[in-house]
Amino acid sequence: MENFTFFSPTYFVFGKGTESEAGKYVKKFGGTKVLLHYGSGSVIKSGLLDRVKESLRAQNIPFVELGGVKPNPRSGLVYEGIGLCRQEKVDFLLPVGGGSAIDSAKAIAMGVPYEGDFWDFYEGKPVEKALPVGTVLTIAAAGSEGSESTVITKEEGMLKRGVSNDLLRPVFSILNPELTCTLPAYQTAAGATDIMAHVFERYFTNTTEVEVTDRLCEAMLLTMVNEVPVAIAEPMNYGARANIMWAGMVSHNNICGVGRKQDWSSHAIEHELSALYDVAHGAGLAVIFPAWMKYVMHHDINRFVQVAVRVWGCRLNEANPEETAKEGIRRFEQFLKSIGMPTSFAEIGAKKEDIPFMVKNIGLQGTHTLGSFVKLTEKDIANIYELAL
Amino acid sequence: MENFTFFSPTYFVFGKGTESEAGKYVKKFGGTKVLLHYGSGSVIKSGLLDRVKESLRAQNIPFVELGGVKPNPRSGLVYEGIGLCRQEKVDFLLPVGGGSAIDSAKAIAMGVPYEGDFWDFYEGKPVEKALPVGTVLTIAAAGSEGSESTVITKEEGMLKRGVSNDLLRPVFSILNPELTCTLPAYQTAAGATDIMAHVFERYFTNTTEVEVTDRLCEAMLLTMVNEVPVAIAEPMNYGARANIMWAGMVSHNNICGVGRKQDWSSHAIEHELSALYDVAHGAGLAVIFPAWMKYVMHHDINRFVQVAVRVWGCRLNEANPEETAKEGIRRFEQFLKSIGMPTSFAEIGAKKEDIPFMVKNIGLQGTHTLGSFVKLTEKDIANIYELAL
Repeated sequence: MENFTFFSPTYFVFGKGTESEAGKYVKKFGGTKVLLHYGSGSVIKSGLLDRVKESLRAQNIPFVELGGVKPNPRSGLVYEGIGLCRQEKVDFLLPVGGGSAIDSAKAIAMGVPYEGDFWDFYEGKPVEKALPVGTVLTIAAAGSEGSESTVITKEEGMLKRGVSNDLLRPVFSILNPELTCTLPAYQTAAGATDIMAHVFERYFTNTTEVEVTDRLCEAMLLTMVNEVPVAIAEPMNYGARANIMWAGMVSHNNICGVGRKQDWSSHAIEHELSALYDVAHGAGLAVIFPAWMKYVMHHDINRFVQVAVRVWGCRLNEANPEETAKEGIRRFEQFLKSIGMPTSFAEIGAKKEDIPFMVKNIGLQGTHTLGSFVKLTEKDIANIYELAL
Repeated sequence: MENFTFFSPTYFVFGKGTESEAGKYVKKFGGTKVLLHYGSGSVIKSGLLDRVKESLRAQNIPFVELGGVKPNPRSGLVYEGIGLCRQEKVDFLLPVGGGSAIDSAKAIAMGVPYEGDFWDFYEGKPVEKALPVGTVLTIAAAGSEGSESTVITKEEGMLKRGVSNDLLRPVFSILNPELTCTLPAYQTAAGATDIMAHVFERYFTNTTEVEVTDRLCEAMLLTMVNEVPVAIAEPMNYGARANIMWAGMVSHNNICGVGRKQDWSSHAIEHELSALYDVAHGAGLAVIFPAWMKYVMHHDINRFVQVAVRVWGCRLNEANPEETAKEGIRRFEQFLKSIGMPTSFAEIGAKKEDIPFMVKNIGLQGTHTLGSFVKLTEKDIANIYELAL
């Protein structure tokens, strides 16, 4: 196990009806003027936004609004949000939505107190200050409600980049599983795939003696394997929705990843898919992750055997452990198909001829490598895309 | 799953040599004058206390000292600490030790800004203020380094009582597994038993649809089952020590217990043992917990079957699941014996004739009940003590 620090100071408020406490928590955490930040459609139609506004009014907290966040949120709206917050003297960001609204709010939170271009942070400039962000979560997926990270796509060049910094941890996050009961099956499944991918990016490591985090990762995977099919079959099943929603947070606030080198190459490889084809991030991960697994499994068969046995319930083939490892990957793919996820380029309309562009766009410039479990060259990445056709 | 809030804002610093950063973190969290609070012997002899002092001097942070904390820490020293802090204008508590030093420091932290008797908080008065506490942990056991609780024994009447409040979460905790490598096997095992007990108190619940926290609990138990025998056999094994130390935190900061009614009757039943015979809390739990399990298992055989299968690796006896449940408890007892823990009154010098006194001292006053999974009467508690003879 490696040395580490772990800091997850978010105040989580979980359960039925909790969105009505949003105003109370904005006040508790010092907000005096709020930017409500959201996508469109569902949070308005469902009445959720009205309930959140009501909770702000009840605390006499003024607010302004900026809707229009899109999946794979864009830099253009971030600039708009920064301008609005400065003009209106907003001191607290309150995204209502999923990872896109939250990530966009985190970008605005960094940008407001910074004199330069907020994109600097996405090119590596260290964050020194950010406005506080509270969240009202509507989909279990990105884990941004508990994480220190944000991912934004810059329209110019369709660059999708992330920033990680403890200053970006929300001060509070409100998680009401009821809000996820009306999600279409496809979004539920894509969110679930994203959650499982957050675990796998941490699970596949070269760091040894990490039993405690291995077991935590497996706990989250087992939860998802058991609960997601229930949520797909019975969308209104509160118990399943609640277990998935909390697993989404635990899988990405890094309690499952401390003390171990993490990989994250599948996320980077997927980002090119979702940036180019505007496919749901989780669906892109369903296409990429099994391909990545097949490509790298020989680097550490034992680790693939471990997850096959402990999570997918495979019997260890002692004479041929490679078979067990492969069976684990097969069951993961079957699981993804069973919840309605695509597992190939063809299913998401991605094209073989775009592979060279996507490989180049990852930014390795011919010589760098991607990932940690196996360090991938551009050639490796092209091979993984090919395996996913 | 029940509605809940979860707030674990402690900044954890984990790994080799991290005690040398204590001063840096005191400064980061605003301390300007420190009370170093510790037991005796080992932290001085090992040079640990000197290294921590050096780190404070390096930051120009003045400190005073109060040693002499005993296992099952006493109210007398807390009063002394409160007086010393007021006199010396201390604004930051830095316990160096295990749960006893940390719990004693938390009591002092509440007492300093309070005009009345600090024991009021242990009799139910809500905490409104407390000085910040940072910790340097030397044993994986109590979980107080990440928890919101403190347990103190009042000399008068040997009353052992606890307080839980988020204000008592340490602002930072330094966990260096190397510091635990020199612990005697008995202390290692007693600490491990305490950690497992913290999980079990959360695991046995009547709340349904708690897959995610069940899996987290099982993850911690599996970690302990696999790593503790290694640490006992090879005391200097850093990997085993590191896994156990982090599991100790995760098992008690309540990430494993949110959204579910918890039990905690075994802890209360044990407290009487350790208060009366001054036995290590973990050893007392090794005596009580299997007896409690045998006594209550019929309340929910399925839950006992689940832990038997998932943690103890029992094969489900479909024709007779009760046998599987019993086999799980047997394996837990065998595990405790294998790591050198007592599992009976006789082994810790406890006496059958003291049972009525201990039952009375729990404070149910003849009519109240203890616990949540099964609500225990005084008669039930006497029966559990008898089962542990």
